[in-house]
Amino acid sequence: MKSLLVVAHGSRREESNQEVRELVGQLRTLDNRYERIDCAFLELAEPSIPDGLRALIAAGCEDVVVLPYFLSAGRHVAADIPGEIDSVRAEHPAVSIRLAPYLGAAPGIPELLRSQADAAQ
Amino acid sequence: MKSLLVVAHGSRREESNQEVRELVGQLRTLDNRYERIDCAFLELAEPSIPDGLRALIAAGCEDVVVLPYFLSAGRHVAADIPGEIDSVRAEHPAVSIRLAPYLGAAPGIPELLRSQADAAQ
Repeated sequence: MKSLLVVAHGSRREESNQEVRELVGQLRTLDNRYERIDCAFLELAEPSIPDGLRALIAAGCEDVVVLPYFLSAGRHVAADIPGEIDSVRAEHPAVSIRLAPYLGAAPGIPELLRSQADAAQ
Repeated sequence: MKSLLVVAHGSRREESNQEVRELVGQLRTLDNRYERIDCAFLELAEPSIPDGLRALIAAGCEDVVVLPYFLSAGRHVAADIPGEIDSVRAEHPAVSIRLAPYLGAAPGIPELLRSQADAAQ
């Protein structure tokens, strides 16, 4: 069973966390290659990354892709998220947990910025 | 003369600021509708948003689109960036400064996440 965990920073502002949850809802309607798509947060919101991973594993997922919803390759992307993944890998060595490149590294970002610029009021 | 100012948060980590500058470079090659495309930072990096706007105006731009390179509609997007824009509007009432929707609101984000998930190693 294949699953996707979208990982965001997390915010004190609950609307920002809700935006991530809604995005995951859109992703579920777009992508049927993953039997389950969830989100998790590095800090300030629930579930944490380890708890999000554990929930997927408890539901029977053996192949999990973790996707950082971040714009830059800072410490969070380079060290903190891989560290959280490693802690769960150690608990569940039979589960494949793979890390996707962070959103900001997507080749389509300039095109998306272009379309947002067109929507300026 | 039409121009685009991509506005990022800014980071203590110079590589993150550099990522934004490189992205703007890619946008310049993609989009020839703007005679000038620059970036500016809300904090922690240079130029500031007012300084970025003033540089465009000094170069002769009368129509500037400001595009927030942010993933969520937090205080920075909702209040801080519009506030910085307003201060420059007051200085240059003849210049049109329009605000584009922030990157995270782009309809193409779920599709981009999908393609990043495919690139997981």
